[in-house]
Amino acid sequence: MYNKKDNQVLENIIYGRNCVLELLKAGKHTVNKLMVSQTARGTIIAEIIKLAKQKGIAVHNVPPEKLDKFSENSQGIAVEVSRIEYVELTDLIEKAKKSPKPLLVVLDGIEDPHNLGAIIRNCVAFGADGVIIPKWRAVGVNETVSKSSAGAVEHIPISRVSNINQTINLLKKTGFWIVGAENGGQVFEKADLSFPLAIIIGSEGFGLHNLTKENCDFLISIPQKNIISSLNASCASAVILYEIAKKRE
Amino acid sequence: MYNKKDNQVLENIIYGRNCVLELLKAGKHTVNKLMVSQTARGTIIAEIIKLAKQKGIAVHNVPPEKLDKFSENSQGIAVEVSRIEYVELTDLIEKAKKSPKPLLVVLDGIEDPHNLGAIIRNCVAFGADGVIIPKWRAVGVNETVSKSSAGAVEHIPISRVSNINQTINLLKKTGFWIVGAENGGQVFEKADLSFPLAIIIGSEGFGLHNLTKENCDFLISIPQKNIISSLNASCASAVILYEIAKKRE
Repeated sequence: MYNKKDNQVLENIIYGRNCVLELLKAGKHTVNKLMVSQTARGTIIAEIIKLAKQKGIAVHNVPPEKLDKFSENSQGIAVEVSRIEYVELTDLIEKAKKSPKPLLVVLDGIEDPHNLGAIIRNCVAFGADGVIIPKWRAVGVNETVSKSSAGAVEHIPISRVSNINQTINLLKKTGFWIVGAENGGQVFEKADLSFPLAIIIGSEGFGLHNLTKENCDFLISIPQKNIISSLNASCASAVILYEIAKKRE
Repeated sequence: MYNKKDNQVLENIIYGRNCVLELLKAGKHTVNKLMVSQTARGTIIAEIIKLAKQKGIAVHNVPPEKLDKFSENSQGIAVEVSRIEYVELTDLIEKAKKSPKPLLVVLDGIEDPHNLGAIIRNCVAFGADGVIIPKWRAVGVNETVSKSSAGAVEHIPISRVSNINQTINLLKKTGFWIVGAENGGQVFEKADLSFPLAIIIGSEGFGLHNLTKENCDFLISIPQKNIISSLNASCASAVILYEIAKKRE
């Protein structure tokens, strides 16, 4: 996706102090995250971190071995470049509001790229107007996500936000009903789903964060015959989006 | 799951000529597949292959590097042991027929262990009576499948069969309606799903095989708003099993 002859590019990882600094200065690429070795020091490193923070990019301190995996010449620093251009949250909301029955999907910390890809594929299949993901403690739209989505990442606006709960508050103000997917919620066949909706899907292991849950207008759950465990996040999202699409027809 | 001090056991892989031979002779473990290096020769290797074929175990000729990944001391041979005891097909069918509304799920070549795990999890969640998977060109129930299923593999009978189409014919004879999940099938909200059903889910990349498709009583498809691609196999199975469970209530 980004070819340079000096071999400092690897799939969607770009490494090396000057390469990373120039990339951030150029500002043309959307960056998922900056990875800095715990042992990296120096003025360029400091400049890169400062610039990243100014631009609201997540900075991860990682063990040096992690960067060594990309290359022996990482110089202690690398960025993961996004496969897509993220959309500004306000633009995404504004566009969704123009849809006859607005539907947004908010992902509260999906960490597995295959899951994120499958969920985005479901969002496109069932006609959601946009996807919102967090910058922190969650995977960004990288190459694996793009492949798992079967290209769907190119067909729906995706925003990244620093704070899911602030985002929920903004969505409420702009007229969205906030619906959390959670075991023990009301059986969602009976829920009224005709309003503008933002569906919140929790992370794979832990479901919705407590604060997020309290912030929801109501919770829905998928009726199961046997509750050994809940469904996985991508399968749950498929069922929920399918049911919403059907009810809204 | 199988502890020996001589270190010839690795997760669910057992390797080394004598270990593999003794395991097959003992016949206590269910084996997913036998892997033989393309360069392996000798009387013990020949004896192992003969024994495996007698027992209906899939024999895969693999490049030596594949076995080297497990151990330098594989001696050119290894087996993948199943995480579960597979159930005889006739037993699985007989038990399913006793269910008030029999429902079986037949997987026509799922290769990704995470997908297989998620599908089995869906089967348990939505009350299917059993799962049928092929021995060839498909993943068996290994450690990764078990983890991805969140333990669901322990809660549903699973059979492995040599030939999916012979299995479909047997299911027809015993009173099951064969329903293929395929784009372009009838919208399945309108299908009559009250009979004993066997749902056939195709492989990730290619959907149903042609012969399998012809063998189905009818095809159903999930209505999508945007058809960039079909849903992934585990998400499709979630929606189908959810809808069947709902309609049958």
